[in-house]
Amino acid sequence: MSAPIVTIAGGVGAARFLTGLLQVVPARDCTAIVNVGDDVELHGLWVSPDLDTVTYTLAGAIDPERGWGLAGETWTAMEALSRYGGITWFNLGDRDLATHLYRTQRRREGASLSEVTSEIVRAWGLALHVLPVTDDRVETRVTLADTGDDVNFQEYFVKHRHGVPVRDVRFAGVADARPGPGVVESIAGAAAIVIAPSNPLVSIAPVLAVPGVRDAVAARRDHTVAVSPIVGGAALKGPADRMLVELGHESSVLGIARLYCDLASVLVIDGVDAEHAAAVEQLGLRCIVTDTIMKSPERAAALARTVVAAAGV
Amino acid sequence: MSAPIVTIAGGVGAARFLTGLLQVVPARDCTAIVNVGDDVELHGLWVSPDLDTVTYTLAGAIDPERGWGLAGETWTAMEALSRYGGITWFNLGDRDLATHLYRTQRRREGASLSEVTSEIVRAWGLALHVLPVTDDRVETRVTLADTGDDVNFQEYFVKHRHGVPVRDVRFAGVADARPGPGVVESIAGAAAIVIAPSNPLVSIAPVLAVPGVRDAVAARRDHTVAVSPIVGGAALKGPADRMLVELGHESSVLGIARLYCDLASVLVIDGVDAEHAAAVEQLGLRCIVTDTIMKSPERAAALARTVVAAAGV
Repeated sequence: MSAPIVTIAGGVGAARFLTGLLQVVPARDCTAIVNVGDDVELHGLWVSPDLDTVTYTLAGAIDPERGWGLAGETWTAMEALSRYGGITWFNLGDRDLATHLYRTQRRREGASLSEVTSEIVRAWGLALHVLPVTDDRVETRVTLADTGDDVNFQEYFVKHRHGVPVRDVRFAGVADARPGPGVVESIAGAAAIVIAPSNPLVSIAPVLAVPGVRDAVAARRDHTVAVSPIVGGAALKGPADRMLVELGHESSVLGIARLYCDLASVLVIDGVDAEHAAAVEQLGLRCIVTDTIMKSPERAAALARTVVAAAGV
Repeated sequence: MSAPIVTIAGGVGAARFLTGLLQVVPARDCTAIVNVGDDVELHGLWVSPDLDTVTYTLAGAIDPERGWGLAGETWTAMEALSRYGGITWFNLGDRDLATHLYRTQRRREGASLSEVTSEIVRAWGLALHVLPVTDDRVETRVTLADTGDDVNFQEYFVKHRHGVPVRDVRFAGVADARPGPGVVESIAGAAAIVIAPSNPLVSIAPVLAVPGVRDAVAARRDHTVAVSPIVGGAALKGPADRMLVELGHESSVLGIARLYCDLASVLVIDGVDAEHAAAVEQLGLRCIVTDTIMKSPERAAALARTVVAAAGV
């Protein structure tokens, strides 16, 4: 019997979780609904970092040390671009460029982001469904605390190496965005919905902010399990911990529980946070304590197994 | 004293001539007005083959065997693109891609093709002026004789390897195009104007077809020298000889003389065509017979010296 699992996904953390999930669930039953707020147009090319991180990771092609881009990548085009003083702070490898060239060409030909994403995912031999949350343009923009500058997320994340405090995050265009094909339907029909251990404020929030998506997840609260991206008060990768504090939340599993308690009925936290389990449960979430650090494919599979079981699948 | 020389240029033949010219005239006195009808948008990138061939050749960076693209080039992005079934018939090297990324980004930022071209030319350390004939979009389109298909020039030239007969050539958009900054002015103020040994129908004609340019050259007929791209009835490179015949002209120096006799007062032809010199002169052109095959930089310089002298500079 088929038991479709939907994962609300950002980039690296979600991709790791999905490598585990694909070991315990048939790929055709897996749907990832992926953030596109990080997308950026550079050099006229449409770059979708989270979609590509998910695809490259699941294809076993991601660079394991960097955590983004392709293994064995070369950087010839970017090096040549520096001759012109071109934009090189957002590093695009030569093989990675091919993905952006293809995506851009297909979109110029009239294909939607959903369609191109599906083509790219199939070209990498993957059978899971990877859905951009929307085919419309949603742009995560960050207000920097020190200067008040309103910048594109990638400028904050890559150019400033997320090393500056933020005052606000917004998702430009989101009010007019429509969920992509299959997004709401897959949530409604899923046996379980997983909120991946991604940054809640800039990876998960822009997915939920697309009109209709938050409500669709909330309507399935009894079948929704969130995995905390915060372990021992800190993010494993990226600025989630600092952003949580800067934007008035708590960088802890409790902070995560407060963000997700209307959407999920279960929160999975790491063993180092076991002491907070009771407090999480007081917020109305069942709390499962396990090893959430996906150091290996085996650990990722074990976490996925725990999550799927927690959803009653 | 400064004696500015303007060269009406296509790609390879013009670029070789310019390598000669730069040996005999200060670079700051040289202006190339370059065809943009071959430009193509691929993968969302703006590709300007003739502009780049001129720049790369003069910078000593062109691949000498292929005659296009950069020496020592790698093809990683194109190879990766084949995974997706992307458009790979128009081969873009990794380093060459940087030029198109830069051009596209700058245009997105609001820079004109003229401005970007100038930036690219300076980045390669060149002091001559390289002017796209227009900043507007002019697209050379070719009607194939066998199928009646109306195709972009690059589809004919690269995809079909110019191996199919043509019935018609047109320059879409040219009626609304305006000459780029400095184009008409440089022709008006030049000590000599050279029509380079480029394809007259698809390299020189789309330059002349931009409203105002043909008239500007014709007004300077007494100072305009054309170099025949046809030697012994054949083109040294490319399909000019076949196209001339297919489109009702003669593939000979006489055919060239008839095309240019209203624009130029001198036609420079190769020694192998010496027997036709009298017939050329009967068309009202002074005919200079010399070695026009630019096998080496020295030969190119000798040709340029002859051309400049013929213009009375």
